[in-house]
Amino acid sequence: MTYAEFQTKPEPEPLRLADLETPCLLLDADCMDRNIARLRQRLDALGVSLRPHLKTAKSVDVARRVMSSAAGPATVSTLKEAEYFAAAGVRDMIYAVGIAPGKLDKVLQLRQKDVDIAVVLDTVEQAQAVAAASRAAGQAIPALIEIDCDGHRSGILPGDAASLLAIAQALTDGAELRGVLTHAGASYGARTEQALIEAAAQERRAVVQAAETLRAAGHACPVVSLGSTPTAHFATDLTGVSEVRAGVFVFFDLVMTGIGVCTVDDIALSVMATVIGHQREKGWILVDAGWMAMSQDRGTAKQPVSQGYGLVCDSTGTPFGDIILADANQEHGIVTVRPGSGATLPDLKIGDRVRILPNHACATGAQHGSYRVVRGTSDIVEANWQRFGGWS
Amino acid sequence: MTYAEFQTKPEPEPLRLADLETPCLLLDADCMDRNIARLRQRLDALGVSLRPHLKTAKSVDVARRVMSSAAGPATVSTLKEAEYFAAAGVRDMIYAVGIAPGKLDKVLQLRQKDVDIAVVLDTVEQAQAVAAASRAAGQAIPALIEIDCDGHRSGILPGDAASLLAIAQALTDGAELRGVLTHAGASYGARTEQALIEAAAQERRAVVQAAETLRAAGHACPVVSLGSTPTAHFATDLTGVSEVRAGVFVFFDLVMTGIGVCTVDDIALSVMATVIGHQREKGWILVDAGWMAMSQDRGTAKQPVSQGYGLVCDSTGTPFGDIILADANQEHGIVTVRPGSGATLPDLKIGDRVRILPNHACATGAQHGSYRVVRGTSDIVEANWQRFGGWS
Repeated sequence: MTYAEFQTKPEPEPLRLADLETPCLLLDADCMDRNIARLRQRLDALGVSLRPHLKTAKSVDVARRVMSSAAGPATVSTLKEAEYFAAAGVRDMIYAVGIAPGKLDKVLQLRQKDVDIAVVLDTVEQAQAVAAASRAAGQAIPALIEIDCDGHRSGILPGDAASLLAIAQALTDGAELRGVLTHAGASYGARTEQALIEAAAQERRAVVQAAETLRAAGHACPVVSLGSTPTAHFATDLTGVSEVRAGVFVFFDLVMTGIGVCTVDDIALSVMATVIGHQREKGWILVDAGWMAMSQDRGTAKQPVSQGYGLVCDSTGTPFGDIILADANQEHGIVTVRPGSGATLPDLKIGDRVRILPNHACATGAQHGSYRVVRGTSDIVEANWQRFGGWS
Repeated sequence: MTYAEFQTKPEPEPLRLADLETPCLLLDADCMDRNIARLRQRLDALGVSLRPHLKTAKSVDVARRVMSSAAGPATVSTLKEAEYFAAAGVRDMIYAVGIAPGKLDKVLQLRQKDVDIAVVLDTVEQAQAVAAASRAAGQAIPALIEIDCDGHRSGILPGDAASLLAIAQALTDGAELRGVLTHAGASYGARTEQALIEAAAQERRAVVQAAETLRAAGHACPVVSLGSTPTAHFATDLTGVSEVRAGVFVFFDLVMTGIGVCTVDDIALSVMATVIGHQREKGWILVDAGWMAMSQDRGTAKQPVSQGYGLVCDSTGTPFGDIILADANQEHGIVTVRPGSGATLPDLKIGDRVRILPNHACATGAQHGSYRVVRGTSDIVEANWQRFGGWS
């Protein structure tokens, strides 16, 4: 589907929540707006710009609300995101997954449409490929060197000057060294405010050290980019940093609640489901939201409080308290009392509706084709914002 | 997107594997055809018909190959599946998730288009709602009573004659009692051939007992339906059963391999990915397939051999052996040697391609918009079969 086809999908007429088929994905736009304002205020105070990661929402409507301008800046996780958002007017993007040489043609096609998209890499081989593609196209592709600030995934260690300079050198042969970038993925394992503050400080130190190494060797390094939702909300000093990337903050989720970055009230996404059965002697209520609607993300299982496949709320979005989606098959969910909590199962009848808060907004969002937009406890569905998925 | 729009998507011109962008979903059609033939032969020998579950593939192209005829029979997990397959000519379906009363309008709309779709239920409240909707529409909606053969999810216990008869009685007030249905979901926990054979026998006993109870009370009970991929492949006697439902067998996956229903060579689905980095001192290869491409299904984590997020194969689909996708972020996968195996990490360079076999075909398939159809080790991409998702 092209972006044009995607956009021509008509908006439905105004609906009430009761009119929606289940399962479906609800987005509380008031809650989202508060989340966006909160991070923006924080980063304004710290003097850095926000380059939101659009991989969470994959929606032009959400992107326009979270970006500083209709042209960006923004972060993307796939070139399909880059193409969709470019078609919607975004002009400043970082494709924040290590570049495969075979994807450079698509990057160049975007750049030839006046989209300033930069790539990310952490090997000399990639830098050579980017330089070669730049020379062949007669256009310098900008690249950021990925820095490994906490060992969780990819990147060059900040003290590995030899690798940093070898990559920078390889880029000079036709490409452009745009800067350095890191992501404190290990911050998801932090459990205290002090640990979050330290994860943010470590993230900053790593990327600033790498930038200084490059500059000392004569390389311009204009962009110093870092970010994760936890560190973005706990950084106390971002000296030397030019921009912060974060994605999941726009919706928040139970994993972020478990880390202590937000409260359950800040979670803007929920899955509405209908009661379809009971197994009373087991204390089970069956609903029509299984893992296909919730995703199989069990991110809270590693936290002190496991939320199963999601935290169950009443039809207005208020948590019952210690009632979780304890198990899930493809289209069946099993609602129970959280083991050990001593809570009482709510009296829900066949056909009653609940809302289920997700463990991981990026994963749950990806299971749905659109966001049904609501505000607070109102039962009016204001809009149906399309979202996309896939890679090509 | 309507089915008509869905169908108008043009097929691309013939491609080679190397032309495909990654990550993408490959389907080995030779392998799929063998899997279909295997189960069909088994069920023919046992004298029962196959009502394949189309929730795994969600593809008209796959459905036409797995069904006995273009008109069905088939099983679906959502009414969107029912609508798509109805538009493609399927006329005999069971919607095998407990019916929510709010969905009966859609069921009736399908029935008014000559689609014989039956619903499933396990409460008197649902039976009353189905009867009321039938009376209001002047058309008897057929319903199957769900039987709980192993306690894993929903259904009436086979010995609970009072509940069975109360539901049957409620249906007589306008609806149609089509039969009984069960699913041996607990068979996924079986670890030996004997346990699988016993799970199949228990599944049969439960549903046949329920049918006999209903018939003894004077209710016709023409359909006696059971199935799961494990029990379908290990049942030794299906006396009294009219049809078998199974879904994942069409593609198979690592969970089924771990149970012992198939071998790795029988897995028809894989995700093709590209190497995008190394962390050599950690023994990691980074690829561009993360959980968005693989799903977050960790079904093998509960089995004796955990496959992480998937088993890694070379570009022709041959497993390296003990090389797994050990961890995954949204668009990053970390390939490592399986802990404790003593295997050697393959020498893969930036830009090299691998194929990754999935834990759970239903879940991995759902992350993709189409199947790129290949055969064996050929590098020709024969077709691009669209698949759909969502609920409305």
